[in-house]
Amino acid sequence: MITLTSDFGLKDPYVAEMKGVILTINPKTTLIDITHDIEKFDIRKAAFTLASAVPYFPDGTVHLAVVDPGVGTQRRALVIQAKKGFFVGPDNGLLILAAQNLGMERVYHLTNSKYMLPKVSSTFHGRDIFAPAAAFLEKGVQPSEFGPEVKAPIIPAFAQVKYSKGSLTGEVLDVDGFGNIITNINEKDVACREGKTVNVELASASLNLLFGKAYAQARRKEPILLVGSHGFLEIALNQGSAAEKFHAKAGDKIKVTFA
Amino acid sequence: MITLTSDFGLKDPYVAEMKGVILTINPKTTLIDITHDIEKFDIRKAAFTLASAVPYFPDGTVHLAVVDPGVGTQRRALVIQAKKGFFVGPDNGLLILAAQNLGMERVYHLTNSKYMLPKVSSTFHGRDIFAPAAAFLEKGVQPSEFGPEVKAPIIPAFAQVKYSKGSLTGEVLDVDGFGNIITNINEKDVACREGKTVNVELASASLNLLFGKAYAQARRKEPILLVGSHGFLEIALNQGSAAEKFHAKAGDKIKVTFA
Amino acid sequence: MITLTSDFGLKDPYVAEMKGVILTINPKTTLIDITHDIEKFDIRKAAFTLASAVPYFPDGTVHLAVVDPGVGTQRRALVIQAKKGFFVGPDNGLLILAAQNLGMERVYHLTNSKYMLPKVSSTFHGRDIFAPAAAFLEKGVQPSEFGPEVKAPIIPAFAQVKYSKGSLTGEVLDVDGFGNIITNINEKDVACREGKTVNVELASASLNLLFGKAYAQARRKEPILLVGSHGFLEIALNQGSAAEKFHAKAGDKIKVTFA
Repeated sequence: MITLTSDFGLKDPYVAEMKGVILTINPKTTLIDITHDIEKFDIRKAAFTLASAVPYFPDGTVHLAVVDPGVGTQRRALVIQAKKGFFVGPDNGLLILAAQNLGMERVYHLTNSKYMLPKVSSTFHGRDIFAPAAAFLEKGVQPSEFGPEVKAPIIPAFAQVKYSKGSLTGEVLDVDGFGNIITNINEKDVACREGKTVNVELASASLNLLFGKAYAQARRKEPILLVGSHGFLEIALNQGSAAEKFHAKAGDKIKVTFA
Repeated sequence: MITLTSDFGLKDPYVAEMKGVILTINPKTTLIDITHDIEKFDIRKAAFTLASAVPYFPDGTVHLAVVDPGVGTQRRALVIQAKKGFFVGPDNGLLILAAQNLGMERVYHLTNSKYMLPKVSSTFHGRDIFAPAAAFLEKGVQPSEFGPEVKAPIIPAFAQVKYSKGSLTGEVLDVDGFGNIITNINEKDVACREGKTVNVELASASLNLLFGKAYAQARRKEPILLVGSHGFLEIALNQGSAAEKFHAKAGDKIKVTFA
Repeated sequence: MITLTSDFGLKDPYVAEMKGVILTINPKTTLIDITHDIEKFDIRKAAFTLASAVPYFPDGTVHLAVVDPGVGTQRRALVIQAKKGFFVGPDNGLLILAAQNLGMERVYHLTNSKYMLPKVSSTFHGRDIFAPAAAFLEKGVQPSEFGPEVKAPIIPAFAQVKYSKGSLTGEVLDVDGFGNIITNINEKDVACREGKTVNVELASASLNLLFGKAYAQARRKEPILLVGSHGFLEIALNQGSAAEKFHAKAGDKIKVTFA
């Protein structure tokens, strides 16, 4: 099974060309779109969307993602092996959050032209490099066959959380349609802390919030901290927009301190 | 085979998460989108779209539909068995019109947690309850295994047609892009009446219309009654907008009297 | 495998109905969308999109395309056999460019009602005629079974290139989002000419351009001629919009003369 994520939209033939390439190499595979409606070049949003979706797919699924402003430059192409799946895409941070969610193990530099189309354009690596790699990976080719190991893939700020005794420092990944402030702090990092009061520093505000389980645990228009259905820590307002109240936006720093 | 209908759109990972859940349980199933671009919470439009599409799918197809403003409240989750297919979704009227089109037989209250994800959120039953149920249903689990029978599912006004000698009273389901006024009166209810003149009461108008077969049977800009390609009775204007001429909109009452 | 291209959009049930019809006839087939977001009735754009995508699909794929302003009139329905695939759709020029890309061999008039739905509407041949034909074709029915051979299918202007010694006259197929001017002149027609200077007449301009391989071979804001990733000749500006500079739009005539 192969999932596809991109910023190509569905008006042009690009997504279909990637699928045609995959199905020519591997006609039996099942293709599932995560989304192709990411805003052009919005790596952070694509990374968050991918990271939210991948835990729901079967172990061993290959996740192909292409949001690639650096296509044609020196940016590397990657194959990532995780405990519960595989990733193919550019080395620009796009894959890291999702790979972490599935237990990132090893990263390879995709250089073996045996697993690319014979003619590689400088503008569409999604079709010419990433799609064939995903098809061969799903067919059983070992990740190490695609090229040498990469010790230091690009880890974007939005995939970094700093730990120091009792506190976590991360950033805002996304503000959703309800105004919930979604952070890059994973539920694994805050396991078993629910029910406690927690200090949150966000922009210029310092808030003491209940770390709860449901929006309705806060009074109307009052804030609460909880783990959203995407598996990340979020600040929400019961029946209101937390992002508006606290003037928060994607990229803002956030610090959470447990008593 | 499982079809999916929702108001989730394709920008967010929600639809992909439902598909991942289904494919984890039942990797061999074929997934077909009906639409995910229903306007948020527009149950009537979703019901009409679903009802139009389901007759074209193979017998035994499982139809999963989620337009669910009442998620997290006491509204029931349903599994419906029809002569020619199965339905999974919320008990808010969404499934009824389509289930009637396939010969609705029995309705069950989906309560058996054996067929849900281990962790059920209060905000996303599409992924946590409905998607796994659809996957297990398609795998062969009997509808009665999902929970107790429901004797009185919610039948929305738009799925009700009243019969009295010689007349049918229903409502406007939808106005399409051409301005055709599509009613909830099924072609089965008006079989063999074509070629006759029929009285139609709509809003404040009382019209004597030919019940014909093709738009072109009416003169230019003149109205006609016919069964549309969706299988419902509609009032159309040859080369014009009937909805504009008669000031009709979704939800309006309509009465059709045969001589 | 069957691909689908249309101008139906994804809000209405039309695309799903076509898929349901196909899967009822041929439940094992794989369905891949090329796009359904073609602007209503834009045959040229649909033809270009289809022609770009089809070379990436496996040999023998059936390509179903429906952009059909003439539905219900006397326009013919076609089945086209090409060296590397099959096409089903209306006889309005939509299929020709793509069929040429796969080596067009024979064209048949789809008239055999054995391969249509029992009830054919006058408004939706996509579902009632084209979808079942695609399903039967993919199941192995011979193209000649669908109806008599057509000697002169409609060849639209945008699928015609005139050759005279040393020059090619075609037209502008599309202007893409970057302002590249994409012509209908196929890479096969200009094989081995790269590296030379070429005269291009476009609208009122006469240009001497390098026929190169990459945008970066031109100086900033300077034009270059090359074969794009879609396989057609295009005029591009390095880091600028050629369409804006030369006031070019789809349908404009273009003449290319090799020295």
